[in-house]
Amino acid sequence: MAKVLNVGMIGYGFMGRAHSNAYCQVNHFFDVPFRPVLKAACARNVEKLKAFAEQWGYESLETDWRKLIERPDIDLVDICVPNNLHAEIAIAAAEAGKMVLCEKPLAMNAAEGQRMVEAVEKAGVANMVWYNYRRVPAVTLAKRLIEEGRLGRIFHYRAQFLQDWTINPEVPQGGTALWRLDVQAAGSGVTGDLLAHCIDTALWLNGPITRVSAMTETFVKQRKHTLTGKVEPVGIDDACAFLARFANGSLAVFESTRYARGHKALYTFEINGEHASIAWNLHDLHRLSYFDHRDEGKLRGWRSIHVTDHGGEHPYMDKWWVPGLQIGYEHTFIHQVADFLTALGKGELAEPTFRTALQTQKVCDAVLESGRTGQWVEVG
Amino acid sequence: MAKVLNVGMIGYGFMGRAHSNAYCQVNHFFDVPFRPVLKAACARNVEKLKAFAEQWGYESLETDWRKLIERPDIDLVDICVPNNLHAEIAIAAAEAGKMVLCEKPLAMNAAEGQRMVEAVEKAGVANMVWYNYRRVPAVTLAKRLIEEGRLGRIFHYRAQFLQDWTINPEVPQGGTALWRLDVQAAGSGVTGDLLAHCIDTALWLNGPITRVSAMTETFVKQRKHTLTGKVEPVGIDDACAFLARFANGSLAVFESTRYARGHKALYTFEINGEHASIAWNLHDLHRLSYFDHRDEGKLRGWRSIHVTDHGGEHPYMDKWWVPGLQIGYEHTFIHQVADFLTALGKGELAEPTFRTALQTQKVCDAVLESGRTGQWVEVG
Amino acid sequence: MAKVLNVGMIGYGFMGRAHSNAYCQVNHFFDVPFRPVLKAACARNVEKLKAFAEQWGYESLETDWRKLIERPDIDLVDICVPNNLHAEIAIAAAEAGKMVLCEKPLAMNAAEGQRMVEAVEKAGVANMVWYNYRRVPAVTLAKRLIEEGRLGRIFHYRAQFLQDWTINPEVPQGGTALWRLDVQAAGSGVTGDLLAHCIDTALWLNGPITRVSAMTETFVKQRKHTLTGKVEPVGIDDACAFLARFANGSLAVFESTRYARGHKALYTFEINGEHASIAWNLHDLHRLSYFDHRDEGKLRGWRSIHVTDHGGEHPYMDKWWVPGLQIGYEHTFIHQVADFLTALGKGELAEPTFRTALQTQKVCDAVLESGRTGQWVEVG
Amino acid sequence: MAKVLNVGMIGYGFMGRAHSNAYCQVNHFFDVPFRPVLKAACARNVEKLKAFAEQWGYESLETDWRKLIERPDIDLVDICVPNNLHAEIAIAAAEAGKMVLCEKPLAMNAAEGQRMVEAVEKAGVANMVWYNYRRVPAVTLAKRLIEEGRLGRIFHYRAQFLQDWTINPEVPQGGTALWRLDVQAAGSGVTGDLLAHCIDTALWLNGPITRVSAMTETFVKQRKHTLTGKVEPVGIDDACAFLARFANGSLAVFESTRYARGHKALYTFEINGEHASIAWNLHDLHRLSYFDHRDEGKLRGWRSIHVTDHGGEHPYMDKWWVPGLQIGYEHTFIHQVADFLTALGKGELAEPTFRTALQTQKVCDAVLESGRTGQWVEVG
Repeated sequence: MAKVLNVGMIGYGFMGRAHSNAYCQVNHFFDVPFRPVLKAACARNVEKLKAFAEQWGYESLETDWRKLIERPDIDLVDICVPNNLHAEIAIAAAEAGKMVLCEKPLAMNAAEGQRMVEAVEKAGVANMVWYNYRRVPAVTLAKRLIEEGRLGRIFHYRAQFLQDWTINPEVPQGGTALWRLDVQAAGSGVTGDLLAHCIDTALWLNGPITRVSAMTETFVKQRKHTLTGKVEPVGIDDACAFLARFANGSLAVFESTRYARGHKALYTFEINGEHASIAWNLHDLHRLSYFDHRDEGKLRGWRSIHVTDHGGEHPYMDKWWVPGLQIGYEHTFIHQVADFLTALGKGELAEPTFRTALQTQKVCDAVLESGRTGQWVEVG
Repeated sequence: MAKVLNVGMIGYGFMGRAHSNAYCQVNHFFDVPFRPVLKAACARNVEKLKAFAEQWGYESLETDWRKLIERPDIDLVDICVPNNLHAEIAIAAAEAGKMVLCEKPLAMNAAEGQRMVEAVEKAGVANMVWYNYRRVPAVTLAKRLIEEGRLGRIFHYRAQFLQDWTINPEVPQGGTALWRLDVQAAGSGVTGDLLAHCIDTALWLNGPITRVSAMTETFVKQRKHTLTGKVEPVGIDDACAFLARFANGSLAVFESTRYARGHKALYTFEINGEHASIAWNLHDLHRLSYFDHRDEGKLRGWRSIHVTDHGGEHPYMDKWWVPGLQIGYEHTFIHQVADFLTALGKGELAEPTFRTALQTQKVCDAVLESGRTGQWVEVG
Repeated sequence: MAKVLNVGMIGYGFMGRAHSNAYCQVNHFFDVPFRPVLKAACARNVEKLKAFAEQWGYESLETDWRKLIERPDIDLVDICVPNNLHAEIAIAAAEAGKMVLCEKPLAMNAAEGQRMVEAVEKAGVANMVWYNYRRVPAVTLAKRLIEEGRLGRIFHYRAQFLQDWTINPEVPQGGTALWRLDVQAAGSGVTGDLLAHCIDTALWLNGPITRVSAMTETFVKQRKHTLTGKVEPVGIDDACAFLARFANGSLAVFESTRYARGHKALYTFEINGEHASIAWNLHDLHRLSYFDHRDEGKLRGWRSIHVTDHGGEHPYMDKWWVPGLQIGYEHTFIHQVADFLTALGKGELAEPTFRTALQTQKVCDAVLESGRTGQWVEVG
Repeated sequence: MAKVLNVGMIGYGFMGRAHSNAYCQVNHFFDVPFRPVLKAACARNVEKLKAFAEQWGYESLETDWRKLIERPDIDLVDICVPNNLHAEIAIAAAEAGKMVLCEKPLAMNAAEGQRMVEAVEKAGVANMVWYNYRRVPAVTLAKRLIEEGRLGRIFHYRAQFLQDWTINPEVPQGGTALWRLDVQAAGSGVTGDLLAHCIDTALWLNGPITRVSAMTETFVKQRKHTLTGKVEPVGIDDACAFLARFANGSLAVFESTRYARGHKALYTFEINGEHASIAWNLHDLHRLSYFDHRDEGKLRGWRSIHVTDHGGEHPYMDKWWVPGLQIGYEHTFIHQVADFLTALGKGELAEPTFRTALQTQKVCDAVLESGRTGQWVEVG
């Protein structure tokens, strides 16, 4: 019988919904030792908070996160607020002895992230960062193929995260909905928001990045600020591309932008190894492309693997429907919660921990520095 | 504030799970006037029933469906059992004044279906059949495009539903898991199981089918029966293809099989009109292919529409995440429940009703008759 | 050193160009024992004939095909005129002792085709019909895979040939350019023009077809006739679909139309076997799709084989460029000429001979009869 | 009546064949004012030269290119030899008053290229470099769409050229077949061989590149040299990626490698503009992908344009077959010859001229310098 795990949710936005859904759904599909209970939701805007809590069935409300983390009936604090609030809340929650799950990116920068790591490790509390794309079944399958050594020596890694939603210069910055365009709240633009995902996956699949050379651009130089009502300079990077070298000798190209007309959330990656290559993209997340040079000559070709098959062959998919029926975006969060709860039952930590996620932060810092200086920068 | 609607679920299999999930999820994403409550689950196998009820949070259990439909605290009966039980349960539930939602196909044949229609209409109870694929956003979008007259005169309709899970002759027939291979329980093979989906969509998108010429085949002539333990003749159609004519003058080809190696649940359809064509398939259910001859000449091409965009443009998608993020198979059931509850709030019926689904049954009957006789058969 | 082979070409249309190109190109890429020489071109329209001959370098002109076939300096007669002229010319050419290459379909019907077979066989002259799609490298590769037994027992065959060029009712029928719409010249519509290709490939890949049930339609009932200038009834089939059974027990669906908006020359086929499946289409003719169930479970997927690789693995491709560089439509004719000349050097016949092509004619006849009668028809 | 243009071909390799084919084919399909005649072929290896000349019908042979360019019966010299010989031959040929067509890249470096430009301009001879991919119909269509202003402000350009043929370290360097791996003959590796194509197209479509930051790698550090028989250091770049900024403010990422398993000749590019985006790749060269944000909201999607349609809408395609039938790789050379001859008839130069191609050379030089220094480098 699954034990209750009381969740205190801070934030009610896009991620607040995605995580709440994961807590609601995990026990319907996964046999895990804990049952998350939506104990309390916390935000400053009471009206919106109430609507959110009612929709998801949160049992109680808090408008001050400090009160939430002090509540003895809360086991786990989930941080779904803008990046500039992550560190303070996470450190306080850890000091209050709560498990801490934090939305990505971990922090505004590596220094902040370092303090967060120290806090959760000192407190000895379970912790995890929501780099959810690791749990797309096709991506998890890619990881397994790499671990099995199927690719051989890796020569190339390339990743993109392309969107187009800020091309219109009338889109304002700041406020609840658009804090991702406000450098004060977000810390950076596509680097922390989108490339962070690409980097997390890359470090997981291909090991450490040692150095980077980046180029950043802000196409729309000023936007009206939602909070001040004034047109203000835009401080974030609208686009960022960087060259990188991995410790294993492979070369990489990363690129992200919110100005790629026609792409909504096109996260792609491709890995070229000595024997085989792998490619994936988020717009068809249920498929993995795979090419194996060891296949018989005349039959070599890129395979489009519909990652929906059962029998434990395709990660997570034995928990869902029948072969051929695809799952969607939000399932990645359910998988992550399932893995977190399973690990918790064993006294272990699920990946990526704060410590793991700090490495992504360090690459982001190096990328942003290189973008400013035009020099190759070693990753700290 | 949404009113409670107490659900009594009969069956705990694949569809029992899919429907239960829909009842759990609908209020998290849709603003509907009712809140389904999982009041009671019913099945004969107590052990499995308990596990199912616990996983989904059903409040109570019943092992006799007759008791379930008599319970005054049940508002709606959901029938998720093999086809040969649909009619008896549905008619009794209607007579007991319950709303009745029935898995597809409606019945074993049109005669049975006719009695079911009469029962729910006489009782004046809400009723609906779970032809869920109408609520794939891309399919709903196709419907809208047709209703807007974009295709012009329709010349061709073609649909397939291809699987490969019964190629192995060692797969047995019958019993809880494999009743779809047992003609006594299923009534037919791919015709009622898979072509029924294709026909429902076709009638919805393209109007009545008037006549058909079919070919059926049973590739594996006998299989061990799970219940008797003996090798017995296989009574179902393993594969079925038919030519058809629609009332609007268009020609059609339909095909279904469970012997198409490499396809797991490949439901496809394509419609060719005077001005434009549409194509869709279930393996990439979030995409709609569209070709419009009225596009500028040099720019004409099949568009792959990623049906994940917002602003009400892409059906249902404003309720989910952000543009570019796909949903999965089970969402179609959530959409159907949402539409049912919305209609209920207005005192209306959501489609397809029993009466609507009876038309699909009539086409299936004609197809099976044509398969037997080798003659063109008029649809009754 | 290649021996000269003098070609007499009858017709200067689309096929006249495609075949002339093949004769010009074959020795540039293939090592064959003969070198075709464009000796004479023949047609009634002198002005157009001159332009054609000049463009391709024909050495002389004839305006009467009877004179052409009597010329002692002509070794081979190539028939590229409307279908209703095939038999008379081919038989006369054979009787004159010429090799005869005839555009597809072989004849207006099987009876005519039978006489043509008898003529070439009696005369003992080399003969071949231009079912060029056998020589698409991807299609030839499919043939090899089937011959190697990779698919196992075949369950399903399906083929389409979809076009959209006659949707406009203002397109006239008849005359030099549009004889394919004139039943007097063409014999039938899509059946002889397009399905004949599908049937030839199918018989080659999957063996004899035993019976068919067809549906035909003429959407535009009358069109202006180019020659008479009057609006006249349309006698051809605009669309045709048929069910079929093969001698090997597999089921098939064939469909062709010129009313499938968005498709220009979309010839597709797919074969589902016990172990593997194959699919191909003419719009991306350089690719073959292949699924093999014997692949490791988690890695199973449809492969898109770019059939451009060397070392003899991909048919014909070692003669062209380098891996990754595709060839086009006209290359299929070059391959067919190369095979013809190679066979000729060995005193053999290249496929499909008149006798082989007669089988396709018989299936077409059965299809057309079934379309008229609504009955299943045995293939003669 | 087309005038004779006598061609002197230097080299008989891959490009010698591709160009010879273009000269043979151009008058069969295009109405141009000149008819190329294969007057003389030149190479040092007499045996191979003879076989080449016979296969293509060259009228005479030369084993010393200096003699060839002095022959009064030669109008045009075509240079298809390794890069290190381009400058000397081209300059001498220009001084001899011949038209000069030179394989890409123009030269070993920009300094050499500068002298070549000066030579042809001083001599006033027609000149052109074989950047053939401009004449893929889909690429030419992309150019037209950009010129029509359909994309609006350009934000992003990205291009790749991926191959995998040198992964095997046993592949030797140098000699006739493998001079592309020998830095003495080739000047550079993927930069001059593959990225040069990407850069030429980019400059054509998107204007000047102002600065670059590159990363290069040689994965296999030494290979046996075909000429010396000894294992020697590899001097070329096996892989190269670079960031770039265009004068129009757009950002770019370029990448090329011969270590991308599964890709044979995968040249790809994508351009993201304010209103529309374009993508193309060489593995399906007959298709152009196009997304237009000005399309009606719910119908927006990437279009796959099958660039095979007629009526002058799709560049060059009215000269070939019928809609839906694709052409292949070698057609790009035929198109380039056709444009050259048409321009010649008007006393104009076809693009890219030596002067135009020199710009690509300058970008290549900057890329290689940046790869060495790790600094951003301004394009000269």
